[in-house]
Amino acid sequence: MEKVNLHQKFKLFSEFWTPKIAGELNDQYVKLAKTKGEFVWHTHDAEDEFFLVVKGSLTIRLRDRDIQLNEGEFFIVPRGVEHKPFSEKEAHVLVFEPKVTLHTGSEKTDLTVEELEWI
Amino acid sequence: MEKVNLHQKFKLFSEFWTPKIAGELNDQYVKLAKTKGEFVWHTHDAEDEFFLVVKGSLTIRLRDRDIQLNEGEFFIVPRGVEHKPFSEKEAHVLVFEPKVTLHTGSEKTDLTVEELEWI
Repeated sequence: MEKVNLHQKFKLFSEFWTPKIAGELNDQYVKLAKTKGEFVWHTHDAEDEFFLVVKGSLTIRLRDRDIQLNEGEFFIVPRGVEHKPFSEKEAHVLVFEPKVTLHTGSEKTDLTVEELEWI
Repeated sequence: MEKVNLHQKFKLFSEFWTPKIAGELNDQYVKLAKTKGEFVWHTHDAEDEFFLVVKGSLTIRLRDRDIQLNEGEFFIVPRGVEHKPFSEKEAHVLVFEPKVTLHTGSEKTDLTVEELEWI
């Protein structure tokens, strides 16, 4: 039960697309992710996913449009909606989603991390 | 299914201690609150509550210590833990909690808002 400083936490890791767990509440995790380049198309069938950009810019590609998120902007991807995060340059993102959510959704790829670490 | 710009949303209201709903996911709400002065001591028996300071400073008083949150810092108040938010100057806070949560917890006071508005 300590406070979390986002800036300090993001300094503790460098990998892209490997979310770290920074908090837990009501069966949800607060995750911190560094993004750069393209992630994979994927869907979460039963979970909505919240993305808040803390630094930089993140594009969430949907099949019919792109959502461009800058610092201080969030977007919620509803369950069942296929999406593909992308950022040209490094971005820092806070993610909120149920503990059971796998970050690549129903797609298991080389990027899939099954056991996320706490940070 | 649109993105939310925190800065723009906070410009849309001025009341303190009257959270507005800015998003919904997995039976949780994303709420935005302006804080200034003292809130009431209260407890949520079955819900954890997440506070992220977007602007300014917020102190979360617990019975045994104070948690001082500055911009870019978050704290999760576990269920059952009595707390009292306080900020000397105006602060902007993003809150995450289950839809059923009443912001004053089990305490109904003059500050209690039963039906929160979407913003």
